[in-house]
Amino acid sequence: MAVLVQKYGGTSVGDAEKIRHVAERIAAAHRAGNSIAVVVSAMGDTTDRLIDLAQSISATPDPRELDLLLSTGELVSCTLVTMALREIGEQAVSMSGAQAGIRTDTAHGSASIVDFDAERVQQALDAGRIVIVAGFQGVTHEMDVTTLGRGGSDTTAVALAAALGAERCEVYTDVDGIYTADPRIVPDARKLEEIGYEEMLELASYGAKMHPRSIELAAWYNTPVLVASSARDVPGTLIHEIAPSGDGAPSGDGAPAGAGGPEEGAGMEVANKVRGVTYERGVARIPLRAVPARPGIAAAVFEPLAASNISVDTIVQNASAERLTDLSFTVDSSDLRAALQVTEGVAGAIGAEECVSHDNLGQVSIVGTGMQNAPGVAAVMFSALAEAGVNIEMITTSQIRITCVVDEAQVNDAVRTLHAAFELAEG
Amino acid sequence: MAVLVQKYGGTSVGDAEKIRHVAERIAAAHRAGNSIAVVVSAMGDTTDRLIDLAQSISATPDPRELDLLLSTGELVSCTLVTMALREIGEQAVSMSGAQAGIRTDTAHGSASIVDFDAERVQQALDAGRIVIVAGFQGVTHEMDVTTLGRGGSDTTAVALAAALGAERCEVYTDVDGIYTADPRIVPDARKLEEIGYEEMLELASYGAKMHPRSIELAAWYNTPVLVASSARDVPGTLIHEIAPSGDGAPSGDGAPAGAGGPEEGAGMEVANKVRGVTYERGVARIPLRAVPARPGIAAAVFEPLAASNISVDTIVQNASAERLTDLSFTVDSSDLRAALQVTEGVAGAIGAEECVSHDNLGQVSIVGTGMQNAPGVAAVMFSALAEAGVNIEMITTSQIRITCVVDEAQVNDAVRTLHAAFELAEG
Repeated sequence: MAVLVQKYGGTSVGDAEKIRHVAERIAAAHRAGNSIAVVVSAMGDTTDRLIDLAQSISATPDPRELDLLLSTGELVSCTLVTMALREIGEQAVSMSGAQAGIRTDTAHGSASIVDFDAERVQQALDAGRIVIVAGFQGVTHEMDVTTLGRGGSDTTAVALAAALGAERCEVYTDVDGIYTADPRIVPDARKLEEIGYEEMLELASYGAKMHPRSIELAAWYNTPVLVASSARDVPGTLIHEIAPSGDGAPSGDGAPAGAGGPEEGAGMEVANKVRGVTYERGVARIPLRAVPARPGIAAAVFEPLAASNISVDTIVQNASAERLTDLSFTVDSSDLRAALQVTEGVAGAIGAEECVSHDNLGQVSIVGTGMQNAPGVAAVMFSALAEAGVNIEMITTSQIRITCVVDEAQVNDAVRTLHAAFELAEG
Repeated sequence: MAVLVQKYGGTSVGDAEKIRHVAERIAAAHRAGNSIAVVVSAMGDTTDRLIDLAQSISATPDPRELDLLLSTGELVSCTLVTMALREIGEQAVSMSGAQAGIRTDTAHGSASIVDFDAERVQQALDAGRIVIVAGFQGVTHEMDVTTLGRGGSDTTAVALAAALGAERCEVYTDVDGIYTADPRIVPDARKLEEIGYEEMLELASYGAKMHPRSIELAAWYNTPVLVASSARDVPGTLIHEIAPSGDGAPSGDGAPAGAGGPEEGAGMEVANKVRGVTYERGVARIPLRAVPARPGIAAAVFEPLAASNISVDTIVQNASAERLTDLSFTVDSSDLRAALQVTEGVAGAIGAEECVSHDNLGQVSIVGTGMQNAPGVAAVMFSALAEAGVNIEMITTSQIRITCVVDEAQVNDAVRTLHAAFELAEG
C-alpha cells in the first residue's frame, strides 16, 4: 500500500466548507487504496491574527511564548479536518507536532527539525487510520513548543514524507503548480510538468510558494513533491530528481562541471537551460565603498547584523582599487533601517568611505540546472535587460541561477523581457 | 518564601486591557515577596466559539479531537498573560498542561488528574520566575491532550497548589466571594468571610461558581482557597477547614455525628447551622411509578443512562405499595429528551407503570455543616416554603444539605424565603 503525505495550506482550510472539501479529497485518496498522512496549516489568516493579538500585549513578544501561541492555529485546523473526516465515515486521528514525533532545536520562531520519530504516525497508518498532523510546529527536548517559521508546514510535510518513506508528498495550495514565471506578470507563463530540486530551490528562494527548507529536505531524502491546486483537479508540477540530458551536465557531486564545459551559442540551446524566471520586490541595498581590504572585514560587517537578527540576502564584494574593496549587500526593505543602524556603527571602524542605502529595489532571476555550462545564458540575460532599458544595480550568480538587482518599478518589465528572451512560453 | 497559586477566569482575561490588569496584579503579588504560579482560563467566550466551530463541522465531534481543539483556548491566554508580565519586567514563563506535568486519565471532555509532577513548575519558581499554566487541560500517558470539563481550570489551580504545597490557592473571578445566596435574587445576601470545604462543595454543586472537583481536591489536600474579585480590591471568601464550634459536630471521620445528637429548637440556633441558600434552574424530573420492587431495578434504569452519557443529578426511591416502588430522578433539562428515550426503552422491561416527565423545574437547597445535628432545620425549611406557597415536588438530603425540587418559576421566591427564614443576612 502506497504511503502518501498530503499538505493543505491555510486558504485550503479557510472555513468549514473548505475543510469539508479537503476532507472529501483526503477520503478519496484513502479510498483509492493509499495510506494517507496529512499536514495542515492554520486556517486562513489565523497566524496573522494571533501575531496581532500578541502585539496588542507586547511590541516584542518573547519568542518562546509566541511559538506556543502560534502553534494553536494548526492545532485548531488539524482537529477540525479530523472531525470532518470522521463525519464522512473515515477513521482519522489528529496529532500535534509533539505527538507526531517532531523534535526541533530551540531556535524559537524558525526552529529546525533535528529528529522525526514517526513511529506513532506509522502505527496509526498501519491500523488503517488517516493521520492529520498540525504543521509548522515541533517540540524541543524540553517539550517546549517551537515553530518552523513561515511556510514551515511545507517542511513538516516533506519531513513526514521522508520519515515515513512515503511515495510522494503532495502539497495542495491555491496555485496549481510551478510556472515559468508569475502568471500575473507574464500572461503566457507556462506550468511546468516537472522541475528539479535545485531549480525549485532557487525558484522558492526568490518568490515562489514553497519553503526553501522543505525543498532542501526533499532533495536530501529524494522525496518527490507534487505541487497542485486543492480547488481544481488539474495536473500540478512534480518536483523530483531530473536525470541530466544531452550536453547539460548535472550539478551533483562528481559531475564534470566547472568553468569550462562545451561551448554553445545563444538562442534555442541557451533557452533550454533556463527553467523559469522569478523575482522579488521590497529589496534594499547597502553599499560600503572603498573599504581597506584586509582579513576580517566581512566578519566585522555581517556578525553584528546577524547578532541583530537581520537576514542578509545577497552579498557582492569587488576590489575597487589597490587595497580597497567595495562591499554590497541586500536586505529586505523592512529591515533596512535596522541594518543601516548596525552598518553605520561598523563603517567607521572598518574605514568605509560611505554608507548610503538604495531602497525600492527588486530582483529578477533566471533559474535552470544546465546554466552553468552554457556561457551564453548570462549574455542573453544582460543584453535583453539592456534592450528593455532596465538598469542593473548588482549581479549575483549561483550554479543554477543568475540574479540582477534592478529598480523595483522595472521588475515586471524585466520578468516579461526575460520570459520572452528565453522562450519559456514554448516549453 | 510563600508559594501562592492564583487562578484567573475567562472574564478576567477577556481582552488585552484585562490581561494587562491581571499581569499587574500578579506582578504586585510577586513583588510583595511571594513565589507565584498562575492558572488561567481561556479568554472570554473562546471555549464556546471553539465548540461552535467544531459543531459547524460535526454535530457530534470526536471527544479526543474536541479536547485538543478546546485546549488551544487556554494556551492562547496563558501565553498572552506571560507576554504581558514580561512586558512589565517580570521573568515569566508559560506552560501547557503537559509541560506543567498534569497527567490525566483518558476520559476526554471530563478527564480526572491522576498525577501531577510539578517539578518543572517548581524549578521555574525556584529560579525566581512566575509560571503561567494553561488551565483546564492535561495529557494522558499517551500524550493525548485531555480537558477536565467545564470549570476545570479551578481543578488545575487547586491541584497545582496541592502539588506545590502552596500556602493558598487564590481564585479570582467576576464575583468577589461566596454569598449566603445569589445577590441578584436576594438583595441583602451577605458575603461569607469563610466557609468549610464540605459546605462549599454543596454550594458549588448547586449553582455557585467553583468546580466541585476542585473543592474536593482542596479538602483532600487541606489547601485553603480564597475566592475573590479580579476587578475590585475587596476581601473575598476563604474556603478552608473550619474547626467545629459549640454543639455543632463536625462531619469528618470519627466525629460523633449520627441520627442522634443534641436536641435543639428551631429559631436562632437552627439558623446558625445554615451557611447559605443555593439554587439551580433547568431541572427536569423523570418519575417511574409502581415499579415492581426487586434487586437490580436501579441498575436497569441507570446503567443505560450512564452508557448514553446522561448525567443524573438526584435520585429518590420510595416504596409506594407492597412490592411496588416509585423511583424518581432529575436530569438537566437539556438532557431530558435523551434521558426519556433511554428510560422509555427500559420502563417496559422493568414493568414501570408510567414514564411521564416534569420539565421546567428548579431546586433550592440550604447548606451548612452543623445541620445534621439540628433536626429543626428541615422543619423550618418546609414550613417557610409552604407559607410562601411554594410546592415541593421532591426532597433529597445529604449530611449538610437539604434540597427541594420546585417549580422553576418559584425558584426566586423560594431562595428569598429561605434566606429570610434562616436569618442569613444577619451573619
